[in-house]
Amino acid sequence: MKFSPLVDELIKTLQCLPGVGPRSAQRMTFQLLERDRVAGQKLGQALSNAMSDVGHCSRCRTFTEQELCPICASSRRGESGQICVVESPADVLAIETSGQFSGRYFVLMGHLSPLDGLGPDEIGLDKLAALIREEQPQELILATNPTVEGDATAQYIAEMCRDDNIRVSRIAHGVPVGGELEYVDGTTLALSLTGRREL
Amino acid sequence: MKFSPLVDELIKTLQCLPGVGPRSAQRMTFQLLERDRVAGQKLGQALSNAMSDVGHCSRCRTFTEQELCPICASSRRGESGQICVVESPADVLAIETSGQFSGRYFVLMGHLSPLDGLGPDEIGLDKLAALIREEQPQELILATNPTVEGDATAQYIAEMCRDDNIRVSRIAHGVPVGGELEYVDGTTLALSLTGRREL
Ligand SMILES: [Zn+2]
Ligand SMILES: [Zn+2]
Repeated sequence: MKFSPLVDELIKTLQCLPGVGPRSAQRMTFQLLERDRVAGQKLGQALSNAMSDVGHCSRCRTFTEQELCPICASSRRGESGQICVVESPADVLAIETSGQFSGRYFVLMGHLSPLDGLGPDEIGLDKLAALIREEQPQELILATNPTVEGDATAQYIAEMCRDDNIRVSRIAHGVPVGGELEYVDGTTLALSLTGRREL
Repeated sequence: MKFSPLVDELIKTLQCLPGVGPRSAQRMTFQLLERDRVAGQKLGQALSNAMSDVGHCSRCRTFTEQELCPICASSRRGESGQICVVESPADVLAIETSGQFSGRYFVLMGHLSPLDGLGPDEIGLDKLAALIREEQPQELILATNPTVEGDATAQYIAEMCRDDNIRVSRIAHGVPVGGELEYVDGTTLALSLTGRREL
Protein backbone atom coordinates (compact mmCIF):
# COMPACT_ATOMS: atom_id res chain seq x y z
CA MET A 1 0.00 0.00 0.00
CA LYS A 2 1.29 3.38 -1.00
CA PHE A 3 -1.61 5.65 -0.10
CA SER A 4 -4.92 4.60 1.45
CA PRO A 5 -6.71 1.56 -0.07
CA LEU A 6 -9.35 3.54 -1.99
CA VAL A 7 -6.76 5.98 -3.34
CA ASP A 8 -4.43 3.12 -4.35
CA GLU A 9 -7.32 1.33 -6.06
CA LEU A 10 -8.22 4.43 -8.08
CA ILE A 11 -4.59 4.98 -9.13
CA LYS A 12 -4.36 1.33 -10.19
CA THR A 13 -7.63 1.15 -12.11
CA LEU A 14 -7.02 4.44 -13.97
CA GLN A 15 -4.13 2.66 -15.68
CA CYS A 16 -6.58 0.60 -17.74
CA LEU A 17 -6.95 3.76 -19.86
CA PRO A 18 -4.67 3.83 -22.93
CA GLY A 19 -1.70 6.17 -22.45
CA VAL A 20 -2.11 6.41 -18.67
CA GLY A 21 0.84 5.19 -16.58
CA PRO A 22 1.39 5.17 -12.79
CA ARG A 23 2.60 8.77 -12.68
CA SER A 24 -0.29 10.33 -14.59
CA ALA A 25 -2.83 8.08 -12.81
CA GLN A 26 -1.53 9.51 -9.53
CA ARG A 27 -1.80 13.08 -10.84
CA MET A 28 -5.36 12.42 -12.07
CA THR A 29 -6.38 10.93 -8.72
CA PHE A 30 -5.05 13.84 -6.67
CA GLN A 31 -6.51 16.43 -9.03
CA LEU A 32 -9.99 14.88 -8.81
CA LEU A 33 -9.82 14.45 -5.02
CA GLU A 34 -8.52 17.95 -4.40
CA ARG A 35 -10.36 19.99 -6.99
CA ASP A 36 -13.24 18.28 -8.67
CA ARG A 37 -15.07 15.51 -6.86
CA VAL A 38 -18.32 16.29 -8.64
CA ALA A 39 -16.66 15.69 -12.02
CA GLY A 40 -15.09 12.52 -10.65
CA GLN A 41 -18.50 11.25 -9.52
CA LYS A 42 -19.99 12.07 -12.92
CA LEU A 43 -17.19 10.22 -14.68
CA GLY A 44 -17.69 7.18 -12.44
CA GLN A 45 -21.39 7.15 -13.26
CA ALA A 46 -20.78 7.66 -17.01
CA LEU A 47 -18.35 4.74 -17.02
CA SER A 48 -20.76 2.42 -15.21
CA ASN A 49 -23.64 3.39 -17.50
CA ALA A 50 -21.66 3.05 -20.72
CA MET A 51 -19.97 -0.23 -19.78
CA SER A 52 -23.25 -1.92 -18.84
CA ASP A 53 -25.72 -0.38 -21.30
CA VAL A 54 -23.87 0.34 -24.55
CA GLY A 55 -24.17 -2.50 -27.03
CA HIS A 56 -23.97 -2.78 -30.80
CA CYS A 57 -26.53 -1.63 -33.37
CA SER A 58 -28.28 -4.78 -34.58
CA ARG A 59 -27.97 -3.61 -38.19
CA CYS A 60 -24.60 -1.82 -38.59
CA ARG A 61 -22.68 -2.95 -35.46
CA THR A 62 -21.68 0.53 -34.28
CA PHE A 63 -21.89 1.36 -30.57
CA THR A 64 -25.35 2.28 -29.29
CA GLU A 65 -27.52 1.66 -26.26
CA GLN A 66 -30.57 1.29 -28.55
CA GLU A 67 -31.53 -1.68 -30.73
CA LEU A 68 -30.75 0.49 -33.78
CA CYS A 69 -28.35 3.45 -33.96
CA PRO A 70 -29.89 6.82 -35.04
CA ILE A 71 -28.56 6.47 -38.62
CA CYS A 72 -29.97 2.96 -39.13
CA ALA A 73 -33.23 4.05 -37.48
CA SER A 74 -33.68 6.91 -39.98
CA SER A 75 -35.62 5.77 -43.08
CA ARG A 76 -34.21 8.75 -45.00
CA ARG A 77 -30.74 7.23 -44.68
CA GLY A 78 -31.96 4.12 -46.51
CA GLU A 79 -33.07 6.01 -49.63
CA SER A 80 -29.70 6.26 -51.36
CA GLY A 81 -29.32 2.50 -51.48
CA GLN A 82 -25.68 2.91 -50.44
CA ILE A 83 -23.86 1.15 -47.63
CA CYS A 84 -20.49 2.50 -46.51
CA VAL A 85 -18.25 -0.08 -44.84
CA VAL A 86 -15.84 1.35 -42.23
CA GLU A 87 -13.54 -0.07 -39.61
CA SER A 88 -14.70 1.89 -36.54
CA PRO A 89 -17.38 4.21 -35.09
CA ALA A 90 -14.83 7.04 -35.21
CA ASP A 91 -14.70 6.56 -39.00
CA VAL A 92 -18.50 6.94 -39.17
CA LEU A 93 -18.12 10.26 -37.38
CA ALA A 94 -15.37 11.38 -39.76
CA ILE A 95 -17.44 10.57 -42.85
CA GLU A 96 -20.56 12.20 -41.37
CA THR A 97 -18.47 15.34 -40.80
CA SER A 98 -17.45 15.38 -44.48
CA GLY A 99 -21.13 15.80 -45.41
CA GLN A 100 -20.64 13.74 -48.61
CA PHE A 101 -22.58 10.63 -47.70
CA SER A 102 -26.29 10.19 -46.98
CA GLY A 103 -26.59 6.40 -46.87
CA ARG A 104 -26.10 3.90 -44.09
CA TYR A 105 -23.00 2.27 -42.65
CA PHE A 106 -21.64 -1.10 -41.74
CA VAL A 107 -19.00 -0.99 -39.01
CA LEU A 108 -16.50 -3.86 -38.99
CA MET A 109 -15.12 -2.93 -35.54
CA GLY A 110 -11.67 -3.81 -36.85
CA HIS A 111 -10.15 -5.32 -40.00
CA LEU A 112 -9.11 -8.78 -41.14
CA SER A 113 -6.10 -9.84 -39.11
CA PRO A 114 -5.69 -13.62 -39.16
CA LEU A 115 -2.64 -13.52 -36.88
CA ASP A 116 -4.79 -11.86 -34.17
CA GLY A 117 -7.58 -14.34 -34.71
CA LEU A 118 -9.72 -11.79 -36.56
CA GLY A 119 -11.26 -13.67 -39.48
CA PRO A 120 -14.32 -12.78 -41.61
CA ASP A 121 -16.84 -13.75 -38.89
CA GLU A 122 -15.07 -11.72 -36.20
CA ILE A 123 -15.44 -8.53 -38.25
CA GLY A 124 -19.07 -9.35 -39.05
CA LEU A 125 -18.76 -10.27 -42.74
CA ASP A 126 -21.36 -13.04 -42.32
CA LYS A 127 -23.71 -10.35 -41.07
CA LEU A 128 -22.75 -8.02 -43.95
CA ALA A 129 -23.47 -10.77 -46.50
CA ALA A 130 -26.90 -11.37 -44.95
CA LEU A 131 -27.56 -7.62 -44.94
CA ILE A 132 -26.75 -7.37 -48.65
CA ARG A 133 -29.11 -10.26 -49.48
CA GLU A 134 -31.84 -8.69 -47.35
CA GLU A 135 -31.54 -5.00 -48.26
CA GLN A 136 -30.40 -5.42 -51.87
CA PRO A 137 -28.45 -2.13 -51.80
CA GLN A 138 -27.27 -0.60 -55.07
CA GLU A 139 -23.74 0.16 -53.91
CA LEU A 140 -21.26 -0.89 -51.30
CA ILE A 141 -18.61 1.78 -50.62
CA LEU A 142 -15.54 0.28 -49.00
CA ALA A 143 -14.08 2.96 -46.71
CA THR A 144 -11.71 0.83 -44.67
CA ASN A 145 -8.42 2.51 -43.74
CA PRO A 146 -5.88 3.06 -46.55
CA THR A 147 -3.47 0.65 -44.88
CA VAL A 148 -2.27 -2.81 -45.88
CA GLU A 149 -4.87 -4.42 -43.59
CA GLY A 150 -7.64 -2.05 -44.66
CA ASP A 151 -6.91 -2.64 -48.36
CA ALA A 152 -6.82 -6.41 -47.85
CA THR A 153 -10.13 -6.28 -46.01
CA ALA A 154 -11.70 -4.21 -48.81
CA GLN A 155 -10.38 -6.66 -51.38
CA TYR A 156 -11.82 -9.58 -49.44
CA ILE A 157 -15.25 -7.93 -49.23
CA ALA A 158 -15.17 -7.13 -52.98
CA GLU A 159 -14.49 -10.80 -53.73
CA MET A 160 -17.25 -11.83 -51.38
CA CYS A 161 -19.76 -9.69 -53.31
CA ARG A 162 -18.63 -10.77 -56.78
CA ASP A 163 -21.80 -12.81 -57.41
CA ASP A 164 -24.19 -10.31 -55.85
CA ASN A 165 -25.87 -7.84 -58.15
CA ILE A 166 -24.23 -4.85 -56.48
CA ARG A 167 -21.76 -2.13 -57.37
CA VAL A 168 -18.72 -2.28 -55.10
CA SER A 169 -16.43 0.76 -54.87
CA ARG A 170 -13.37 1.76 -52.88
CA ILE A 171 -12.87 5.32 -51.63
CA ALA A 172 -10.23 7.10 -53.72
CA HIS A 173 -6.67 7.32 -52.55
CA GLY A 174 -7.00 11.01 -51.94
CA VAL A 175 -6.44 9.96 -48.38
CA PRO A 176 -2.74 9.63 -47.56
CA VAL A 177 -1.55 6.02 -47.79
CA GLY A 178 -0.55 4.65 -44.39
CA GLY A 179 -2.68 7.18 -42.52
CA GLU A 180 -5.72 6.48 -40.38
CA LEU A 181 -9.11 7.59 -41.63
CA GLU A 182 -10.26 9.26 -38.46
CA TYR A 183 -7.40 11.79 -38.61
CA VAL A 184 -8.08 12.90 -42.19
CA ASP A 185 -9.64 16.36 -42.67
CA GLY A 186 -13.17 16.67 -44.06
CA THR A 187 -12.20 18.12 -47.45
CA THR A 188 -9.82 15.28 -48.25
CA LEU A 189 -12.40 12.77 -47.15
CA ALA A 190 -15.05 14.43 -49.32
CA LEU A 191 -12.71 14.23 -52.33
CA SER A 192 -11.93 10.61 -51.65
CA LEU A 193 -15.66 9.85 -51.60
CA THR A 194 -16.54 11.67 -54.85
CA GLY A 195 -13.50 10.14 -56.56
CA ARG A 196 -14.32 6.54 -55.61
CA ARG A 197 -13.64 3.87 -58.24
CA GLU A 198 -15.55 0.71 -59.04
CA LEU A 199 -13.81 -2.52 -58.06
CA MET B 1 -24.78 14.32 -30.62
CA LYS B 2 -21.81 12.66 -32.25
CA PHE B 3 -22.22 9.07 -31.10
CA SER B 4 -24.98 7.68 -28.87
CA PRO B 5 -25.87 9.64 -25.70
CA LEU B 6 -24.06 7.33 -23.25
CA VAL B 7 -20.94 7.20 -25.45
CA ASP B 8 -20.95 10.99 -25.88
CA GLU B 9 -21.37 11.45 -22.13
CA LEU B 10 -18.39 9.19 -21.39
CA ILE B 11 -16.20 11.00 -23.94
CA LYS B 12 -17.20 14.34 -22.41
CA THR B 13 -16.71 13.39 -18.77
CA LEU B 14 -13.32 11.73 -19.38
CA GLN B 15 -12.03 15.19 -20.27
CA CYS B 16 -12.19 16.21 -16.60
CA LEU B 17 -8.95 14.21 -16.26
CA PRO B 18 -5.80 16.34 -16.55
CA GLY B 19 -4.09 15.88 -19.93
CA VAL B 20 -7.10 14.25 -21.60
CA GLY B 21 -8.56 16.08 -24.62
CA PRO B 22 -11.45 15.16 -26.96
CA ARG B 23 -9.32 12.90 -29.14
CA SER B 24 -7.81 10.80 -26.38
CA ALA B 25 -11.14 10.67 -24.52
CA GLN B 26 -12.64 9.15 -27.67
CA ARG B 27 -9.80 6.64 -27.95
CA MET B 28 -10.19 5.69 -24.26
CA THR B 29 -13.95 5.24 -24.65
CA PHE B 30 -13.68 2.98 -27.69
CA GLN B 31 -10.88 0.94 -26.18
CA LEU B 32 -12.86 0.27 -23.00
CA LEU B 33 -16.07 -0.53 -24.91
CA GLU B 34 -14.36 -2.80 -27.40
CA ARG B 35 -11.75 -4.52 -25.29
CA ASP B 36 -12.14 -4.15 -21.56
CA ARG B 37 -15.57 -3.51 -20.11
CA VAL B 38 -14.68 -5.26 -16.87
CA ALA B 39 -11.80 -2.82 -16.30
CA GLY B 40 -14.11 0.07 -17.21
CA GLN B 41 -16.67 -1.08 -14.64
CA LYS B 42 -13.96 -1.42 -12.01
CA LEU B 43 -12.69 2.08 -12.76
CA GLY B 44 -16.23 3.49 -12.50
CA GLN B 45 -16.66 1.84 -9.10
CA ALA B 46 -13.21 2.96 -7.87
CA LEU B 47 -14.03 6.55 -8.86
CA SER B 48 -17.39 6.53 -7.09
CA ASN B 49 -15.89 5.00 -3.95
CA ALA B 50 -12.91 7.36 -3.80
CA MET B 51 -14.89 10.52 -4.56
CA SER B 52 -17.46 9.83 -1.85
CA ASP B 53 -15.41 8.12 0.86
CA VAL B 54 -11.87 9.57 0.76
CA GLY B 55 -11.44 12.46 3.16
CA HIS B 56 -8.48 14.00 4.97
CA CYS B 57 -6.52 12.59 7.91
CA SER B 58 -7.70 14.55 10.95
CA ARG B 59 -4.10 14.96 12.12
CA CYS B 60 -1.88 15.43 9.01
CA ARG B 61 -4.46 16.30 6.30
CA THR B 62 -3.29 13.68 3.78
CA PHE B 63 -5.92 11.72 1.84
CA THR B 64 -7.46 8.80 3.69
CA GLU B 65 -10.85 7.17 4.13
CA GLN B 66 -10.09 6.62 7.83
CA GLU B 67 -10.13 9.16 10.66
CA LEU B 68 -6.31 8.84 10.83
CA CYS B 69 -3.95 7.81 8.02
CA PRO B 70 -1.78 4.71 8.69
CA ILE B 71 1.30 6.82 9.51
CA CYS B 72 -0.51 9.03 12.04
CA ALA B 73 -2.20 5.93 13.49
CA SER B 74 1.17 4.23 14.17
CA SER B 75 2.51 5.11 17.63
CA ARG B 76 6.01 4.11 16.50
CA ARG B 77 5.96 7.03 14.02
CA GLY B 78 5.49 9.46 16.92
CA GLU B 79 8.67 8.40 18.74
CA SER B 80 11.17 10.52 16.80
CA GLY B 81 9.43 13.75 17.77
CA GLN B 82 9.86 14.97 14.17
CA ILE B 83 7.19 16.40 11.89
CA CYS B 84 7.96 16.73 8.19
CA VAL B 85 5.91 19.39 6.38
CA VAL B 86 5.24 18.67 2.68
CA GLU B 87 3.02 20.13 -0.02
CA SER B 88 1.26 16.97 -1.24
CA PRO B 89 0.54 13.28 -0.53
CA ALA B 90 2.87 12.42 -3.43
CA ASP B 91 5.69 14.09 -1.49
CA VAL B 92 4.92 11.87 1.52
CA LEU B 93 5.32 8.86 -0.76
CA ALA B 94 8.62 10.20 -2.15
CA ILE B 95 10.06 10.74 1.34
CA GLU B 96 8.81 7.35 2.56
CA THR B 97 10.58 5.76 -0.41
CA SER B 98 13.84 7.46 0.58
CA GLY B 99 13.77 5.50 3.86
CA GLN B 100 15.40 8.42 5.70
CA PHE B 101 12.51 9.59 7.84
CA SER B 102 10.65 7.77 10.60
CA GLY B 103 8.50 10.58 12.02
CA ARG B 104 5.10 11.91 11.07
CA TYR B 105 3.99 14.34 8.38
CA PHE B 106 1.89 17.41 7.93
CA VAL B 107 0.51 17.83 4.41
CA LEU B 108 -0.31 21.38 3.31
CA MET B 109 -2.21 20.23 0.18
CA GLY B 110 -0.63 23.13 -1.67
CA HIS B 111 1.53 26.15 -0.87
CA LEU B 112 0.92 29.81 0.00
CA SER B 113 -0.41 31.55 -3.08
CA PRO B 114 -2.28 34.74 -2.15
CA LEU B 115 -3.20 35.50 -5.75
CA ASP B 116 -5.08 32.18 -5.93
CA GLY B 117 -6.75 32.85 -2.59
CA LEU B 118 -4.52 30.33 -0.79
CA GLY B 119 -3.57 31.96 2.50
CA PRO B 120 -2.26 30.39 5.75
CA ASP B 121 -5.66 28.96 6.74
CA GLU B 122 -6.27 27.38 3.32
CA ILE B 123 -3.05 25.36 3.60
CA GLY B 124 -3.86 24.37 7.19
CA LEU B 125 -1.29 26.47 9.06
CA ASP B 126 -3.79 27.18 11.86
CA LYS B 127 -4.06 23.41 12.26
CA LEU B 128 -0.26 23.03 12.16
CA ALA B 129 0.15 25.65 14.90
CA ALA B 130 -2.38 23.83 17.09
CA LEU B 131 -0.63 20.52 16.40
CA ILE B 132 2.73 21.96 17.51
CA ARG B 133 1.21 23.27 20.77
CA GLU B 134 -0.43 19.92 21.40
CA GLU B 135 2.29 17.46 20.39
CA GLN B 136 5.32 19.58 21.38
CA PRO B 137 7.56 17.99 18.71
CA GLN B 138 11.33 18.46 18.87
CA GLU B 139 11.81 19.29 15.20
CA LEU B 140 9.84 20.58 12.25
CA ILE B 141 11.45 19.62 8.90
CA LEU B 142 10.22 21.89 6.10
CA ALA B 143 10.21 19.79 2.92
CA THR B 144 8.12 22.04 0.70
CA ASN B 145 9.20 22.13 -2.95
CA PRO B 146 12.44 23.96 -3.84
CA THR B 147 10.47 26.57 -5.80
CA VAL B 148 9.79 30.26 -5.16
CA GLU B 149 6.39 29.39 -3.66
CA GLY B 150 7.69 26.43 -1.67
CA ASP B 151 10.56 28.50 -0.25
CA ALA B 152 8.20 31.35 0.68
CA THR B 153 5.86 28.90 2.39
CA ALA B 154 8.76 27.38 4.34
CA GLN B 155 9.92 30.86 5.36
CA TYR B 156 6.42 31.76 6.55
CA ILE B 157 6.17 28.59 8.67
CA ALA B 158 9.62 29.22 10.19
CA GLU B 159 8.51 32.73 11.23
CA MET B 160 5.28 31.31 12.65
CA CYS B 161 7.25 28.94 14.91
CA ARG B 162 9.78 31.53 16.08
CA ASP B 163 8.31 31.67 19.62
CA ASP B 164 7.72 27.94 19.95
CA ASN B 165 10.40 25.89 21.61
CA ILE B 166 11.09 23.84 18.49
CA ARG B 167 13.93 23.28 16.05
CA VAL B 168 12.91 24.23 12.51
CA SER B 169 14.97 22.95 9.56
CA ARG B 170 14.76 23.11 5.77
CA ILE B 171 15.80 20.20 3.50
CA ALA B 172 19.10 20.88 1.75
CA HIS B 173 19.19 22.24 -1.76
CA GLY B 174 21.91 20.83 -3.96
CA VAL B 175 22.99 18.70 -6.86
CA PRO B 176 20.80 15.61 -7.34
CA VAL B 177 22.70 12.35 -6.83
CA GLY B 178 23.40 10.59 -10.12
CA GLY B 179 22.93 13.76 -12.10
CA GLU B 180 25.63 15.35 -14.20
CA LEU B 181 27.03 18.60 -12.96
CA GLU B 182 26.93 20.27 -16.38
CA TYR B 183 23.16 19.83 -16.61
CA VAL B 184 22.41 21.32 -13.20
CA ASP B 185 21.07 24.88 -13.31
CA GLY B 186 23.14 27.73 -11.92
CA THR B 187 20.92 28.52 -8.96
CA THR B 188 21.02 24.93 -7.72
CA LEU B 189 24.80 24.82 -8.19
CA ALA B 190 25.22 28.07 -6.27
CA LEU B 191 23.11 26.70 -3.40
CA SER B 192 25.06 23.44 -3.39
CA LEU B 193 28.29 25.44 -3.07
CA THR B 194 27.12 27.76 -0.29
CA GLY B 195 25.64 24.76 1.54
CA ARG B 196 28.84 22.66 1.25
CA ARG B 197 29.84 20.52 4.25
CA GLU B 198 33.31 19.66 5.50
CA LEU B 199 34.42 16.06 4.89
ZN1 LIG C 1 -26.67 1.21 -37.01
ZN1 LIG D 1 -2.18 11.45 8.94
